[in-house]
Amino acid sequence: MIRRKNEMEIEEREKMRGGDGIIKILHFFKKEEFNANVRLCAKLIIPPFCSIGLHQHLDEDEVYIIVKGKGILFDGKQEHIVLEGDAILTGKGESHSIKNIGEDDLEIIAFISKYSENQKI
Amino acid sequence: MIRRKNEMEIEEREKMRGGDGIIKILHFFKKEEFNANVRLCAKLIIPPFCSIGLHQHLDEDEVYIIVKGKGILFDGKQEHIVLEGDAILTGKGESHSIKNIGEDDLEIIAFISKYSENQKI
Repeated sequence: MIRRKNEMEIEEREKMRGGDGIIKILHFFKKEEFNANVRLCAKLIIPPFCSIGLHQHLDEDEVYIIVKGKGILFDGKQEHIVLEGDAILTGKGESHSIKNIGEDDLEIIAFISKYSENQKI
Repeated sequence: MIRRKNEMEIEEREKMRGGDGIIKILHFFKKEEFNANVRLCAKLIIPPFCSIGLHQHLDEDEVYIIVKGKGILFDGKQEHIVLEGDAILTGKGESHSIKNIGEDDLEIIAFISKYSENQKI
């Protein structure tokens, strides 16, 4: 299945997970389109000064790939500056939040894979 | 877990899946680092004139996100030109191959999520 850029659904989420501003979510594919247990496969577009608030990933792994911009990631313990090319893996009940600290949009490719019964912690 | 761009393992595969040339695989995270059933989480860098040969995805879904360049994707039935911003989902036993037809590298973010027992077809 090929999904062209201009066919992708764009969702807007205000104060996402208690964060600031409006985040755009460009869905490459929706979870129903997978046979595997994939909950999210999208590009997150976070405008300047906006953020996704702190949230936990229980029974799933999430990968963020920073494809453009600069952000502060909080991993539940400390803050880290993240840049284009960096990747973040969050799972096993860990939490995270991310804020755009650059002058342009922060763009992140995000992928969530849910655990099967025998992988749950 | 944060993986910085300069810490990522780069693997080189010659004639990958019977294709042409040498493909670089920049691993964001290795499969062992996931708790979920993720087999691949990487950027594929395909130089001009190079390709990944035709191969099947049984018991797993693979997503390609074209982040740079231009390619021809063969989906087992017909060829399609794919461009930056397009995404491809291959699973349920389908096959695909991809060839760079541009003047610069074709860069693809690739994820493979394997099926649990009850998802296998």
